[in-house]
Amino acid sequence: MRILSSELKYHTGKQVQVSGWLHKKRQLGKITFLILRDRHGLIQIVDETNESEKLRGLHNGTVLTVTGNVIGLEKAPSGAEIHHPVITVDVSVEHVSPIEVDKAIDHTPENLETLFENRVIGLRNVIERGIFKVQANVKQSVRDYLRSQDFTEFNSPKLLAGSTEGGAEVFKLDYFGKEATLAQSAQFYKQIMVGVFERVYEINPTYRAELSYTTRHMTEFMHIDVEMGFIEGLQDVLAIAGGILHVACTNAWKDHEEELLALGAVKPVLKQQLPIVSLKELHRLYTESTGQDTTKEKDPTPAEERWICEYSAKEWKSEAVFVSEFPAKDMKFYHYRNELNPDVADRADLLFRGVEIATLSRREHRYDKLVEQLKAVGGDPEHLGFKYYLMAFKYGLPAHGGFGMGLERLTQKIIGLHSVKEATLFPRDVNRLQP
Amino acid sequence: MRILSSELKYHTGKQVQVSGWLHKKRQLGKITFLILRDRHGLIQIVDETNESEKLRGLHNGTVLTVTGNVIGLEKAPSGAEIHHPVITVDVSVEHVSPIEVDKAIDHTPENLETLFENRVIGLRNVIERGIFKVQANVKQSVRDYLRSQDFTEFNSPKLLAGSTEGGAEVFKLDYFGKEATLAQSAQFYKQIMVGVFERVYEINPTYRAELSYTTRHMTEFMHIDVEMGFIEGLQDVLAIAGGILHVACTNAWKDHEEELLALGAVKPVLKQQLPIVSLKELHRLYTESTGQDTTKEKDPTPAEERWICEYSAKEWKSEAVFVSEFPAKDMKFYHYRNELNPDVADRADLLFRGVEIATLSRREHRYDKLVEQLKAVGGDPEHLGFKYYLMAFKYGLPAHGGFGMGLERLTQKIIGLHSVKEATLFPRDVNRLQP
Repeated sequence: MRILSSELKYHTGKQVQVSGWLHKKRQLGKITFLILRDRHGLIQIVDETNESEKLRGLHNGTVLTVTGNVIGLEKAPSGAEIHHPVITVDVSVEHVSPIEVDKAIDHTPENLETLFENRVIGLRNVIERGIFKVQANVKQSVRDYLRSQDFTEFNSPKLLAGSTEGGAEVFKLDYFGKEATLAQSAQFYKQIMVGVFERVYEINPTYRAELSYTTRHMTEFMHIDVEMGFIEGLQDVLAIAGGILHVACTNAWKDHEEELLALGAVKPVLKQQLPIVSLKELHRLYTESTGQDTTKEKDPTPAEERWICEYSAKEWKSEAVFVSEFPAKDMKFYHYRNELNPDVADRADLLFRGVEIATLSRREHRYDKLVEQLKAVGGDPEHLGFKYYLMAFKYGLPAHGGFGMGLERLTQKIIGLHSVKEATLFPRDVNRLQP
Repeated sequence: MRILSSELKYHTGKQVQVSGWLHKKRQLGKITFLILRDRHGLIQIVDETNESEKLRGLHNGTVLTVTGNVIGLEKAPSGAEIHHPVITVDVSVEHVSPIEVDKAIDHTPENLETLFENRVIGLRNVIERGIFKVQANVKQSVRDYLRSQDFTEFNSPKLLAGSTEGGAEVFKLDYFGKEATLAQSAQFYKQIMVGVFERVYEINPTYRAELSYTTRHMTEFMHIDVEMGFIEGLQDVLAIAGGILHVACTNAWKDHEEELLALGAVKPVLKQQLPIVSLKELHRLYTESTGQDTTKEKDPTPAEERWICEYSAKEWKSEAVFVSEFPAKDMKFYHYRNELNPDVADRADLLFRGVEIATLSRREHRYDKLVEQLKAVGGDPEHLGFKYYLMAFKYGLPAHGGFGMGLERLTQKIIGLHSVKEATLFPRDVNRLQP
């Protein structure tokens, strides 16, 4: 009966059986120290009887089963080690791995391509895989939180007849002789689903044919898509987005402190109610503080995003902040124009540690208004890409709003990674389609 | 402060505010009965004062907010109804909906295309949406169960450089001037991830360019992909697949009995340990019972799948059954040949209520053997589609196995729907790319 590294210390004084990968081998005089890796951690095995001769010529990665006695030892990787081992080689590895998984992996920008090229093996590094334990935890936290707020999970199709939001950034494919596109967002579907379940979400892949070589862009990523009906205003949507960020950070540190510390992560400081600053006020504060005039910018500039997060951390004790009140002239056709100030759209960005992690907006829910706004940007209400969408409004949709949040970007920022690709198991960009 | 239909009966004697869609309107002499629909159910509103004159000319789907007094009434939809209503029209619906959502929706095969064409509105039907409440519940049950078994969730890319399993059933797309394909399965990635987390799963979309017009095939569906390392044999994989089916059925009935009954579903009878029958034995039993000789078939025939499920229900008190021991000559290159009987592959199908809902197998984990089996089917180990996959084996993968299970097919069979498309929000097939 196999036991895991995490259970080892509870078996002190007993004989146990463990299985895993040979992680490291070290000779100290007549004693051989083996480190075995399993899904929970590392186990040190002390061999004083030449049992590890069985491993001669074999390399790290070799799969072993070891039987031996557990000796408690606080400084050992799992709080105990195994003595008097009897070793069985389950799978022999006869070649040296192209990447060392028993050391910290080089995450400098220059090394990223090597990192991804060797991803299949590099992920076995216990620090590296910590990134994806945290990510799995984030997904689970988001779902649990949304369920607690009475949201229903749904799946929208990613194969579409037309592109929903247009633009060049859409992948096209041959669909039995017709053209199909890959969904750039679940935007229209989540709004349609408000008519069914009022509060909905999905976490599913999203595709953008981004011809970008930045640390922020990928062609495929996991999008947390949230939409809620019967809202009083944008503030209801902000509350849910803030709630997600809170639980994601809190649970990641509660459940994976060890992995986060090994990754060099720092616990985020977040106000219970995240601060909100209007875009105008941001421009004013930034211009005043730096002397660089941004008051004519229609969006927060990347420099402003970084600056306001630092400012907010210092002044408002929150590393996350909402920027709100974007100019109405730049809004999308489905955005909602503020009722008190028609120059402003009910839209906000959630910034966290220097980048935007979510874009939020209230949507125009009145059929006639929506058709009018669509036509104003040159859209054709009869076009297949809009026809079914508009049906939902024609037959009654309540006031609603929502947001999209990138899972990888959220993970990246919780951990403090340089590029969003480092928070992706097998990243996809202009140049990379494998592994 | 809005309250929901499910909370209504706890507010008997009080004044409340509810919001939702006008579901039905009925005149009985001087009294108007309104039914309001919200995300949890229906609320009956009794108007004796002509307040509903405000709804003159408006149709079902109109979004309303109603304030009134709660009167307990057991036979009312939510165990109470609202009297003395004051109505506010939030969103007017001025057209009659193309599909009636206040009645049972026609699910006969002839009506399916109409059903899907009007899906955006049809899903608002409380019986219809029950299908997707059950489906959300199934997803959650599967995840909770797998987490309880120490599986880690991951996401594999769906944009690939080459097709993993070949065949004509692959969608191709233009990827910045190169060719990319859409993943037909997470097969290779989940095996790679065994090297990282030992036990992994994902529930993500999968794409098959199936030129099929059946009730079983779609071009996009949600696949529950599971893989586990350090197994003793295929029986470990069977146990997890059986576990999933058990929790999915149990929780669906625990949490959504009302929806299931409205859908005409029948609680499944499942043995704690699902019965296992070898393919040979199935052929023998079927041939003996029906007089039709299937002993030369390499797979269970559709007729056999139905027959054995009925047989199992009657003889073994289980509506689900495993068929195992498939002929080795038909196995895929990554399947594992049985150690005691080399004519047999360690492979099984999980059948439930007449169809296969999962295919399971132990995988060949020995590098040399795998390369040999790949070459034997004409595969090139240096090909991009195999190169990274084989890396995982070269540097050590333990004995492992797994399965794929279709979320929609599982939902379909739990509910007892005719076609898998009925268990899909927005189905995709050869002819259907919208809504």
